[in-house]
Amino acid sequence: MDGRIATMLRRCAAEPSVIALGGGLPARQLFPRRALSESFLRVMQDPAAPALQYGWPEGRERLRSWVADRLRGRGADVEAQDVIITSGAQQAIALAAEVSFQPGAHLACDAESYSSALSLFRGRRLVPTTNHEGAAGFYVMPVVSNPHGRGMAEDARRDLLRRARRTHAPILEDDAYAELRFEGPPPRPLLADDRTQVWHVGTFSKTLFPGLRIGWLVPPRRARARVLEAKNASDLETSALSQVVLEDLLEHLDYEALVSQARRFYARRARHLARALARRLPDLRFAAPAGGFSLWAETSYHGDEASLLERAIHHGVSFDPGSAFQVTAAGKPVAMRLSFSSETIPRLLEGVERLARAVRAFGRGARGAASAA
Amino acid sequence: MDGRIATMLRRCAAEPSVIALGGGLPARQLFPRRALSESFLRVMQDPAAPALQYGWPEGRERLRSWVADRLRGRGADVEAQDVIITSGAQQAIALAAEVSFQPGAHLACDAESYSSALSLFRGRRLVPTTNHEGAAGFYVMPVVSNPHGRGMAEDARRDLLRRARRTHAPILEDDAYAELRFEGPPPRPLLADDRTQVWHVGTFSKTLFPGLRIGWLVPPRRARARVLEAKNASDLETSALSQVVLEDLLEHLDYEALVSQARRFYARRARHLARALARRLPDLRFAAPAGGFSLWAETSYHGDEASLLERAIHHGVSFDPGSAFQVTAAGKPVAMRLSFSSETIPRLLEGVERLARAVRAFGRGARGAASAA
Repeated sequence: MDGRIATMLRRCAAEPSVIALGGGLPARQLFPRRALSESFLRVMQDPAAPALQYGWPEGRERLRSWVADRLRGRGADVEAQDVIITSGAQQAIALAAEVSFQPGAHLACDAESYSSALSLFRGRRLVPTTNHEGAAGFYVMPVVSNPHGRGMAEDARRDLLRRARRTHAPILEDDAYAELRFEGPPPRPLLADDRTQVWHVGTFSKTLFPGLRIGWLVPPRRARARVLEAKNASDLETSALSQVVLEDLLEHLDYEALVSQARRFYARRARHLARALARRLPDLRFAAPAGGFSLWAETSYHGDEASLLERAIHHGVSFDPGSAFQVTAAGKPVAMRLSFSSETIPRLLEGVERLARAVRAFGRGARGAASAA
Repeated sequence: MDGRIATMLRRCAAEPSVIALGGGLPARQLFPRRALSESFLRVMQDPAAPALQYGWPEGRERLRSWVADRLRGRGADVEAQDVIITSGAQQAIALAAEVSFQPGAHLACDAESYSSALSLFRGRRLVPTTNHEGAAGFYVMPVVSNPHGRGMAEDARRDLLRRARRTHAPILEDDAYAELRFEGPPPRPLLADDRTQVWHVGTFSKTLFPGLRIGWLVPPRRARARVLEAKNASDLETSALSQVVLEDLLEHLDYEALVSQARRFYARRARHLARALARRLPDLRFAAPAGGFSLWAETSYHGDEASLLERAIHHGVSFDPGSAFQVTAAGKPVAMRLSFSSETIPRLLEGVERLARAVRAFGRGARGAASAA
């Protein structure tokens, strides 16, 4: 990310007077803190203290079983031994990329994709592209994408699976937001249709707490040993403290109820944000999200997104500038990821008012610049 | 590691009847569990719940300040902003290697070095070597090495710094066990003598709990931005839960007292192990450790270390086979890392009895094989 943008986002993250339409943080109101504390105290009673000791690179058996059960419930042929616990979904993507691709490989992605996956690929000298032809692999979020918050169409899904089978190209299926599709339980993952090409990535960061840093990777079975070597080399293993506490939490918590509540909670915030945007920024192009934490919005102006962000912060609102999510930003109008996940509804509405003022002022500047040019 | 050895070690880790002279785990008797629980409950009171939310790739300010203070106390010119919190020391080594070296680079190491660093280097196509000439970098544990548990001599230390300055080759200083040098507080790190070539690695895994997975990296200042990019790509950030709880723990705990107690505790176990080995296995070559969790012992037999391990497990004792720690095992006698950290003194003594029987039986086999050959 551009250094100037990074500095601005840092500064306003620490400033509560700036309403955050960026960031994509989960709502802390939903964090099951009491249940977590109870779990913590329970696991501390174990005299063997596995929560504090070294473990194994693949992670804990009971947690892997829980993940496998849930994926089997969605139609995938997965056993506990197929699951590798990772330090968040990000590490799962990093391990999959490390084991699957050589530097220089082209990876087909949506035109707008998860920013930290794009930086990871670029940092490892992989080339994100929107062109499926000749791609060495695919990175997709089929159920709820980030930044769009929308699912993949049924025919695109079929095409992708067909193409991957024909070319033997791996598919990285990033399922981070799948549990937070607003309309009911997550559908069949790609993993359920293909166990040899699909690398399935998931996380507890969106439904429980990001602070745990617990995600998982289900690689094709032939790749398991290589992934475990890469995991061991990266950080030996994922925090036992997080894993043991989470195992206890999942045993004592009504996870279904919690996830259903989260879906309703975020759907309501999404609805309010979308309605306010349509009313106050009628020229903004966006599609209502079907899940997740964010939507993707394009202005009708070309220009410098950092200036728009600067103006927005001046008006007391922030957003995630679009270029970090774009495979290529060249020739495209200024765009942004707008998150509805972390602010209350009154603040979301006020945030849109502020954003509307900032975008209008930016538009006048952009038109002025265009006519001056 | 050899698959057969890995399987044996796995199996006996779950078997309390097998005395563990391998593993190198910290003693759970020393874990400050009560203080940890108190810290946990305190941090859960914070309504902003930073322990459960996303943070930043460099880690939390208060924790970085603590690390910087401690390193300044040892003579190094380090500020909080120089410290990057990592998911254990392993990740710190991985990030340093990723940013510093290209595939194919030769890395000078001790003839016996930390096994997971060696696997990491090899996995990234770096070449561990004992030859300092032409090395692109150095990996060292100057205060307390693993597996030897011994420090670097003063002249070797000076030579290393001189050579690195002349060749501009980075030094990875792995300080994981420095706090557990038996004779008092850790000395001046290499970092105190060179802030441009030295990448300093540390961890709380040996003094507090491995289950936290909290370590740190102090890279040269010019490399900070690249390390943060690599950290963000690897796993976004280290568990906020672990970091926030640890910040509180360090504020409320008498860390000096805890570390002094740990030094005495491990020194006593080390003494008992070394004495028993000298008495029961007089042909075993080893040097008494000056710190850490382990010592390095060479048998007088050539042969298959996996057979010795198998025999040892049959006698009810396990160890870490030496080849995982060796830059090259070719032509060397069978060796092992023996840990005194996790078993009680009576079990250590009994473990040595069992090991002596296994080594003698192995020696008879080895001589038999030699005379048959």
